[in-house]
Amino acid sequence: MIIDPQSTLADIRMRVHGDLTHFLAAQTRYLGEIGTELIPAAEAMSSFLLDSGKRLRPLFAYAGYIASGGADDDAVVKAVASLELLQACALIHDDLMDGSDTRRGKPSMHRHFESVHHNEELSGSAQGYGESAAILLGDLALVWSDQMFHSSGISQSALLRSLTVHDEMRVELMAGQFLDIHEQALATQSVARSLKIARYKSGKYTIERPLHFGAAIASEDSHHRAIMTEIFSEFGLPLGEAFQLRDDLLGVFGDPATTGKPAGDDLREGKRTVLMAMTHDRANEHQEAVIATHFGDADLDMAGVEAIRTIIADTGAQAHVEALIEKLTMTALDALTRDEIDANAHALLSELATIAIRRSI
Amino acid sequence: MIIDPQSTLADIRMRVHGDLTHFLAAQTRYLGEIGTELIPAAEAMSSFLLDSGKRLRPLFAYAGYIASGGADDDAVVKAVASLELLQACALIHDDLMDGSDTRRGKPSMHRHFESVHHNEELSGSAQGYGESAAILLGDLALVWSDQMFHSSGISQSALLRSLTVHDEMRVELMAGQFLDIHEQALATQSVARSLKIARYKSGKYTIERPLHFGAAIASEDSHHRAIMTEIFSEFGLPLGEAFQLRDDLLGVFGDPATTGKPAGDDLREGKRTVLMAMTHDRANEHQEAVIATHFGDADLDMAGVEAIRTIIADTGAQAHVEALIEKLTMTALDALTRDEIDANAHALLSELATIAIRRSI
Repeated sequence: MIIDPQSTLADIRMRVHGDLTHFLAAQTRYLGEIGTELIPAAEAMSSFLLDSGKRLRPLFAYAGYIASGGADDDAVVKAVASLELLQACALIHDDLMDGSDTRRGKPSMHRHFESVHHNEELSGSAQGYGESAAILLGDLALVWSDQMFHSSGISQSALLRSLTVHDEMRVELMAGQFLDIHEQALATQSVARSLKIARYKSGKYTIERPLHFGAAIASEDSHHRAIMTEIFSEFGLPLGEAFQLRDDLLGVFGDPATTGKPAGDDLREGKRTVLMAMTHDRANEHQEAVIATHFGDADLDMAGVEAIRTIIADTGAQAHVEALIEKLTMTALDALTRDEIDANAHALLSELATIAIRRSI
Repeated sequence: MIIDPQSTLADIRMRVHGDLTHFLAAQTRYLGEIGTELIPAAEAMSSFLLDSGKRLRPLFAYAGYIASGGADDDAVVKAVASLELLQACALIHDDLMDGSDTRRGKPSMHRHFESVHHNEELSGSAQGYGESAAILLGDLALVWSDQMFHSSGISQSALLRSLTVHDEMRVELMAGQFLDIHEQALATQSVARSLKIARYKSGKYTIERPLHFGAAIASEDSHHRAIMTEIFSEFGLPLGEAFQLRDDLLGVFGDPATTGKPAGDDLREGKRTVLMAMTHDRANEHQEAVIATHFGDADLDMAGVEAIRTIIADTGAQAHVEALIEKLTMTALDALTRDEIDANAHALLSELATIAIRRSI
C-alpha cells in the first residue's frame, strides 16, 4: 500500500508541533519555579518555536527512520522534534551574529529582548541586554534539544546508537558556521569555498545528518545501518547543497511575505554566498563597480537591491544556480532508486526533496 | 588505608589535563580536515582549556563517583573531564556578555579573535568578528563537552544513568546565567535574589550537580543513588554558595596575579553580587553616594576601587560575607559525617571544600 506522502508529512509536522508545545510548557513551568523572572525567557522561546517553522530537520529524520525500517512511534517523533530546538539555537545565534532585526516576520531574539529592556525601563544598555539574552537563550535551546532527545522515550539501544551521529551533526554545524563568519571577513570570494560552507552549514546539517540520525534510531543491524547511511549521503548531500542554493536565491529574490525577512536582506548584509561568488566570477568591470557600491550597505534601498538583482540575472549567475539546483536534485533523486528504499519511503523522501528545493520565490 | 587526598586530586587533575589534551588534538585534526581556516579556532580553544584551570568540576564529579562506591577508572576521568568544556562555553559566553577583556591573564575569546581580525587584516568589523567567533566557539565547546562525555568509554548503563542529571545541570546553569543578566538590569539590589543567583549559577552547577553526576555514573542501585544524591545536596549546596561568595570577594579584593582579572574588575563592571547587595543594605547616605559615583564605571581607577573597597569593609559587609562563608562551609562539612561516606571519600571531599573556598585573596 502506498501511503500519501503529503498527508504523512502533515501528520508528522502536527505531532512535532504538539511535542514541542508539550515540552516547552513543561520547561516554562520548571523555569517559573526557579524564578518568575525566567518566564518571559521561556515564553519568548515558545513563541520562537511554535509560531512557525517548516520542521524540515525533524521531517528528514523521521523519513530516514521510516526508510530504514522503523515503524511509526510517538517516542521517535519526539526525538526528531528535538532537532527544532537545535535549529532554534542556530537561528538565534545566527541572527545575533548577522545583526538581523527580524526572523520569520517578527523581531529576532536579541531585538525582542532589547524591546523588553525598553518596555520594562530596565537599567543599563538595552542592546547589551538583548544580546546577552540571545546568547543565553541560544545556549538554553541547545541544552533543551539534548534534554528533549534524551527523554523522548526511544529505546535505550536506539538512544545509544544515535548519540554519536547527533554529536557529529552538531560539531559540523558549528564548524560550518565558523567557516561562514570567516568567509564574510575575507577580502575575496570563492565559489569553491562558498560551496564547502553550504555543504557543512546546510547540506549535512539540514538533510544528510537528520537522515543518518533517523537511520541510527531505526536500524539495529550495523551492516544495514551502514548501507542506509551511504544511501542517505548520496541523497542528502547534493540535496542539501541544492537547499542552500535555493536559500541563496531567496535571500536575494525572495518575497518578504514568504521569507519573513526584508527583501534583499542578504545583499544589505553582504552575505558571501555561492550565488554572489558566481556573480563576481562573471561580472564585468562596470557590474563589479555597482556591486562594490551597494553590496553590504546596511542602508541599501530597493533601487540598490534591484540594481544588484539585475546584475545577478544579467551575468547568468541566477540561471546557473537554478540549473545547479536542478542537477543536484536529480543526482539526489537517483539515490532513491536503490533497492533498499521501499516504495513508501521513496514517496516520502521525494516529497521532502520537493519541499526543500521548490520553495517559492 | 587512608589515601592522601592532595596527591589523589593532583593525579586526577593531571589525568583530566591529559584527556583534554588528547581530545582537543583529535578535534583539531578533525576540524583541520574540514578546512584549514578552522585551525586557529581549534588552537584558541586548546589554549583556553589547557593553559590553566583548577578543574574544580571534574574533581567534584570524580569525588562524587568515588564516594558513591566507584573504583578508579580512566573512562570515568574522561567523562568528568568533559565538564571543563561545558565550563569553557560558560566562560567564553560570560566574558562576551560582560564585555571582559581578559580571562586568566590573557585576552578573552572575543578579544583574541578581534586581534586575529586586525593581524590578518580581514575585512569588515573586527569587533563583530570577535563576537561571532566567541559565540560559535562557546557553542562548539558545549557540543564538544557532550561528545567527550558520550565517547568517554564509561559503561552504557552508566552513560544512560548520568544523561538526565547532566542535562538538568546544564539547564540550571543557563537559567542561573539568565537570572544574573536580568539582575544586572534591575534598578534595585536584593540579597535574597543575589543568593538565588549564586545558588543556580554556581552552587548547583559547580559543586552539587558534578557530585550528582559522579554518583549517577558510579551507583547502579537506585536506592543507594538517592541517598548519595541527598548527601551531596546537603554538602554541595551550602559549599557552592560559599564558593560563589568567595568569588564575590575575589572580584573586589582579589590579587590580579591570582584571579587573572584586573583588580576590582567586578566593581568596574557593576556586578550585582551578594557582597554588593549586603553593602547597599548597610551603607549610610554618604557611602551610598560614593558607590553611586564609582560602581559600574568602566574607567574606574585604583583610587575609586579603593574607595568602594573601604566602604565594603567599613559597612561590615566584607566581614559578614566571610562569616557566611565560614558558616556555610561548616554546614557542608557536617553532611560528610554521614555513615555512607567512607574515610577516603571524606578526606577527598574535605580537601576539595578547602580548595573551593580558601582561594587566596
